[in-house]
Amino acid sequence: MTAFCAPIGPLHKVHLVQPHGANATVRLECAMQSVCADLVLQRLDPDPALPRNRALYACLRSAILDGTLAPLSRLPASRDLAREIRLSRNTVMHAYDQLLAEGYVLSRVGSGTFVAATAPDRLLDTPSAQAAASPGHAATGLSQRARNLLAQPAASLCQWGAFMPGVPDVTQFPNRHFARALSRLWRSPDPTLLTYGAGGGHAALREALTAYLRVARGVHCEPGQILVTEGVHQAIDLAARMLADVGDAAWVENPGYWGIRQVLRMNGLHVQGMPVDEHGMRLPEDGTDAPRLIVVTPSHQYPLGAVMSLPRRQALLAFARRTGAWVLEDDYDSEFRFGGHPVPAVQGLETDAPVIYIGTFSKTLFPGLRVGYMVLPVALADAFRSAHADLYREGHGMTHLALAELLQEGHYAAHIRRMRVLYGRRRSLLARLIREHLGDAYLGEHNSNAGLHLMLRLPDAVDDAALTQALQARGILTRPLSRYYVGSTGARGLLLGYASVPEPEIVAGFWTLRDVLRTGAGIP
Amino acid sequence: MTAFCAPIGPLHKVHLVQPHGANATVRLECAMQSVCADLVLQRLDPDPALPRNRALYACLRSAILDGTLAPLSRLPASRDLAREIRLSRNTVMHAYDQLLAEGYVLSRVGSGTFVAATAPDRLLDTPSAQAAASPGHAATGLSQRARNLLAQPAASLCQWGAFMPGVPDVTQFPNRHFARALSRLWRSPDPTLLTYGAGGGHAALREALTAYLRVARGVHCEPGQILVTEGVHQAIDLAARMLADVGDAAWVENPGYWGIRQVLRMNGLHVQGMPVDEHGMRLPEDGTDAPRLIVVTPSHQYPLGAVMSLPRRQALLAFARRTGAWVLEDDYDSEFRFGGHPVPAVQGLETDAPVIYIGTFSKTLFPGLRVGYMVLPVALADAFRSAHADLYREGHGMTHLALAELLQEGHYAAHIRRMRVLYGRRRSLLARLIREHLGDAYLGEHNSNAGLHLMLRLPDAVDDAALTQALQARGILTRPLSRYYVGSTGARGLLLGYASVPEPEIVAGFWTLRDVLRTGAGIP
Repeated sequence: MTAFCAPIGPLHKVHLVQPHGANATVRLECAMQSVCADLVLQRLDPDPALPRNRALYACLRSAILDGTLAPLSRLPASRDLAREIRLSRNTVMHAYDQLLAEGYVLSRVGSGTFVAATAPDRLLDTPSAQAAASPGHAATGLSQRARNLLAQPAASLCQWGAFMPGVPDVTQFPNRHFARALSRLWRSPDPTLLTYGAGGGHAALREALTAYLRVARGVHCEPGQILVTEGVHQAIDLAARMLADVGDAAWVENPGYWGIRQVLRMNGLHVQGMPVDEHGMRLPEDGTDAPRLIVVTPSHQYPLGAVMSLPRRQALLAFARRTGAWVLEDDYDSEFRFGGHPVPAVQGLETDAPVIYIGTFSKTLFPGLRVGYMVLPVALADAFRSAHADLYREGHGMTHLALAELLQEGHYAAHIRRMRVLYGRRRSLLARLIREHLGDAYLGEHNSNAGLHLMLRLPDAVDDAALTQALQARGILTRPLSRYYVGSTGARGLLLGYASVPEPEIVAGFWTLRDVLRTGAGIP
Repeated sequence: MTAFCAPIGPLHKVHLVQPHGANATVRLECAMQSVCADLVLQRLDPDPALPRNRALYACLRSAILDGTLAPLSRLPASRDLAREIRLSRNTVMHAYDQLLAEGYVLSRVGSGTFVAATAPDRLLDTPSAQAAASPGHAATGLSQRARNLLAQPAASLCQWGAFMPGVPDVTQFPNRHFARALSRLWRSPDPTLLTYGAGGGHAALREALTAYLRVARGVHCEPGQILVTEGVHQAIDLAARMLADVGDAAWVENPGYWGIRQVLRMNGLHVQGMPVDEHGMRLPEDGTDAPRLIVVTPSHQYPLGAVMSLPRRQALLAFARRTGAWVLEDDYDSEFRFGGHPVPAVQGLETDAPVIYIGTFSKTLFPGLRVGYMVLPVALADAFRSAHADLYREGHGMTHLALAELLQEGHYAAHIRRMRVLYGRRRSLLARLIREHLGDAYLGEHNSNAGLHLMLRLPDAVDDAALTQALQARGILTRPLSRYYVGSTGARGLLLGYASVPEPEIVAGFWTLRDVLRTGAGIP
């Protein structure tokens, strides 16, 4: 319900916004006035033969009956409406009186005229009810690529709870610092932060990212090479469009992240899954035709968890250089390595590597932020920046600047460090529970000591998709490993996200999980 | 420069964040410690033969020389670094002393150890300088569709000033209300607002939009039909992918908005420009093959300004129904109609119209917000919502909820009403200046009394693109009409945005404009 046809409830809201209550009420009047007037001007029968008060009555009555003016919504004061629609106040009052007499509206002294609560509900649904009546047009409407996409919808509606993979503990986000920066920026916003952007992201954020990526990830970059995106999906989308045409091939890890496969396919690329072992993606020995793009997760293979070995990294770069392919390095959660040496980015192995480095704040801060970044080879930076501005239209200037502060003042790196400790603890708890109560065999063999999730391996006989359903019924969120394979389902398992789950819930969740494994998959 | 290698300047920043200065300093230490430690652990020579202090010295020295540790950046306290990299504190102090003795770092009592300011600058550029050395790989790298796109880059780098078209007066945005809602939400954020979304936008926003669109725009919709997007571009992108395959045809208005053409082309659609007259897009009389999509701006044709007549609207719907084509109604700035009756949406003409209604907050609030919305036929809503979640991954929960409040409490409608008055005034001033000092002939014939820009028509002999350049050199932003045509450049003119320009600047800008028209185009 909106204020311009404000139900009695929300009207109180207005009084809550004191000390500006007076202002708000004035605004409210303006609002009601303007949009209800729009409605009348749109619908009023122009027939001069019809008395104006009858025409107005009929117009409002139909708006009430078809639900446009919702029950308990407020009508503008007769004086205001009269002025807006250029009719005499008497005319408007006559129409209101008629509606009142017939029970379409009711009047409250001091608070105005409202649509009656008893307007027949079934009529309120008319639009969509009738809209549903034309499935033919729609059914024949979906494109082939849409049907392919919808054949395996992947995004989960519920994204919060044990053991949702890929989600950090957003309750730990340093919101005080972020909110402080935002509210300071909002006090007197710089207009250029509110208009469209075209520079590949706010300069301050690109500089802060440069300094961070150089030191923390061993990435070679200057601010001009950084392009801030809406996240990894948009980065892959842009790279696919800029570097490949319809029908070109892209190699992805198999198993790998479903989202990247779908974005590549939607851009007309032929997606080929390459096997993964304990050293990461395996390049084919034979003379398979080289692809345009090779998408890899070297720091922490998603979802199995392997770290790409140095020889494999060097071979990958040599292959890309020889064939003219581009490596897309998805470094989605590299910040979280618990003990052992951090793994620098492949992009940093050579100063002119044929690599586009892709990172995101979704795992280090929170996914809903929708901010990621690409580090582009200098030779591609201008082309990508220009295309990005044209295809996606940039903005979010306020968010970029607040983020830049978070990085510049050290809160970002400090947060990552705190989360490393927290996630490391949660990870080892979940790993211990699996080892002790299910056995080592159930701990994925590639699980490196990193990331936001553990791979619970299952016997090939187990239907991990059905198990996921059963777990969801018990309130446990997970995703089946089989869904991460291209084509033929490969190994079976469950992705267990621990990062966002406090220890007690990890324990409780594990017992539910074990219970379902017993009953649902006969696992002792 | 970031705090984890904080130059002396930004260190003061930390003291600014009092009363949390102490905390901040602690965090700062953690931050420096963790990421510098990462750097060392990545680069430290493991050779046991090499004394650890020499290895550490060499590692830090190289990081300073190649600019990874920037001039004046701060090193962690020896105690902290020692603990992090598991070496004795003496070892670290020896390495620091050696660097100090050789002038790579300098030490300040009480503030710690810093990289010397005199590190040779040319070395700092090494990465990008060398990266530029591999243009071959990149040059052959761009796809054909990328080259087509880049052949006519369109987005302007500068988006603020007289007479930038398509930009509202963002300084008028009710930022107090918005900021208050945001800071309240940030005080104790609901985790589900920070994770990925998958519901097509926050329910509260979809409800508020439903109530607003029904009344203000005559749109038939239920909240379930609304899909919140990143803006019009993403809405067009999704519709093109869901309803058309590579090679399918899409009709656009000619002239029309460049951004929509580029998004359609990038999705493999064959874009055909349809002529526009004073009634809007003209449908072909002959039996031209029907397209999959028809993109129109019925409320205010962009950029010429015509309002699509009712017969034209009915013919369009009948054509779409007959051929199975989908109408994409881009209602980008319909809220701003100055006098005369508001024009309800085409989507609302029939309850089951084959129309996808597309709107945006870019013109009513501010473009950098990057929030738009689609109203989908019921039969398509689920498919679009599912695909949207998979292809773009949703989020921005906080923004959606703050926006919903703006609508619910009437601030949104009130703001639109205020802007109608303000923009109407600015529009008539600019129109009067053109009429009085250039003549009626220069006012575009289709200019209806609406929107955020005026069309200044020019003789066909005039090169409006060159004129735009000349104006930019004088600090006046505009866009040439010829750029809005598909294929052959059509009429000539300049788009003059007045919405974001205060009256005095309109006058000043107009005189500069007239001056350039005289000297640059020989217009008296």
